[in-house]
Amino acid sequence: MTDDDVILSHRLADAAGAAILPYFRAAFGLEIKPDQSPVTLADRAAESAIRAILEIERPGDGIIGEEYGSVREGAARQWVLDPIDGTRAFVAGRPIFGTLIALMEDGVPVLGIIDQPVTRERWLGVVGRPTLLNGKACAARKGRALGEAIVATTSPAAFSPATLARFTAVIPAVRDVVYGGDCYNYGLVASGHIDLVIEAGLKIHDLAALVPVVEGAGGRMCDWQGRSLDAASDGNVIAMGDAALAGSVLGLLNV
Amino acid sequence: MTDDDVILSHRLADAAGAAILPYFRAAFGLEIKPDQSPVTLADRAAESAIRAILEIERPGDGIIGEEYGSVREGAARQWVLDPIDGTRAFVAGRPIFGTLIALMEDGVPVLGIIDQPVTRERWLGVVGRPTLLNGKACAARKGRALGEAIVATTSPAAFSPATLARFTAVIPAVRDVVYGGDCYNYGLVASGHIDLVIEAGLKIHDLAALVPVVEGAGGRMCDWQGRSLDAASDGNVIAMGDAALAGSVLGLLNV
Repeated sequence: MTDDDVILSHRLADAAGAAILPYFRAAFGLEIKPDQSPVTLADRAAESAIRAILEIERPGDGIIGEEYGSVREGAARQWVLDPIDGTRAFVAGRPIFGTLIALMEDGVPVLGIIDQPVTRERWLGVVGRPTLLNGKACAARKGRALGEAIVATTSPAAFSPATLARFTAVIPAVRDVVYGGDCYNYGLVASGHIDLVIEAGLKIHDLAALVPVVEGAGGRMCDWQGRSLDAASDGNVIAMGDAALAGSVLGLLNV
Repeated sequence: MTDDDVILSHRLADAAGAAILPYFRAAFGLEIKPDQSPVTLADRAAESAIRAILEIERPGDGIIGEEYGSVREGAARQWVLDPIDGTRAFVAGRPIFGTLIALMEDGVPVLGIIDQPVTRERWLGVVGRPTLLNGKACAARKGRALGEAIVATTSPAAFSPATLARFTAVIPAVRDVVYGGDCYNYGLVASGHIDLVIEAGLKIHDLAALVPVVEGAGGRMCDWQGRSLDAASDGNVIAMGDAALAGSVLGLLNV
């Protein structure tokens, strides 16, 4: 991972945002077939724009994309793309979906971008460096006990019955739970406004970019057993502003 | 209700937004006592700003505010204020809370504003006129069957066990449910991006402003029995982009 990769990742996010914005709140309605819904058009346009740049600039790297699958799966460096994380929010016209771009080296996320093109907010996380929101260092919140924590999760429907029961056990122990938000929640962890995100069933393209963003801001991401996240994770994730929350949260999730 | 009331309502929303913005994502953290949390400071600052203007400009009108209660309860004209609808979203740093300002005449909402000061989006509904988003007419979406509908609700925790069971019966019948959003969801109904909002337990300051916004865009708001909303409503509400959805939704909610 080099500074050139960081510069390139900004180009990729710029290209995705430019591809997405014409579709945001556009009146495609029922003119589009179910298998080519507006969000799919926006998703595909954004991922195509990113991949076109990567094929020129990093022809030896692998790509794992939500829409167009994987190429060069054996490469040590893998770009991991979710052109629109929060498709339901995007379709509903909410400006809190996001484009996720990650670079993994040997299965470990080393660079991540969460980009919101409507509100023009971009979190950039690079392993070993402070996370930046629009170029300015941001920091996760420390020192809140679980009982004071603001917790976010996107949707109760994203849990299985078993994981929902475990998540539900956490609710009475925290100050507030806010719903919705998708990847934007993780940006808000990095910026110190949300203390904890608990989700289940994420895919690698949903989670790879989040790790450098949250951890570069001083937070911690792990699975529901407390293990670091990588390409082999099961997709049940926790993001904490303060790693000191891990003990109490993991305890409640694993009763 | 006169054009002067419309002009005044913009002044009120401007004043509220100016009072709120310094608190958005500000690092008050634990320096503030529980009974004077940052959101309460922002709420109070915004409602105070609105009330100060109303006391000068409309000294004979009543005011119903979330933070400072009611004055002149017998007046035929009542200004109904929720300075920050979506307090949890505000505290979590999400730019989709809103300021709600309504004018009721004889218990019926005749003017409503949903104002989002961060993204600078303002929906204005006036009875008998087209709803405006930032000065431009907007329209709710028509012609989608329930099975194609995008449905929003803020939080499963906002329902009672009984109303949650009834809401849950609707979920399998629609295309998608998005969570979170508060008053912003109703603006997105007026703009044609969300088809249906179903919520329970709203107060008069939560709902009065929504009615002129949604209905001026061609939508329909009612309670779970299909009755129009007024000061006497029980707070269980539905907003529909297309009133033709009423039959199927009310049927599912009242099985």
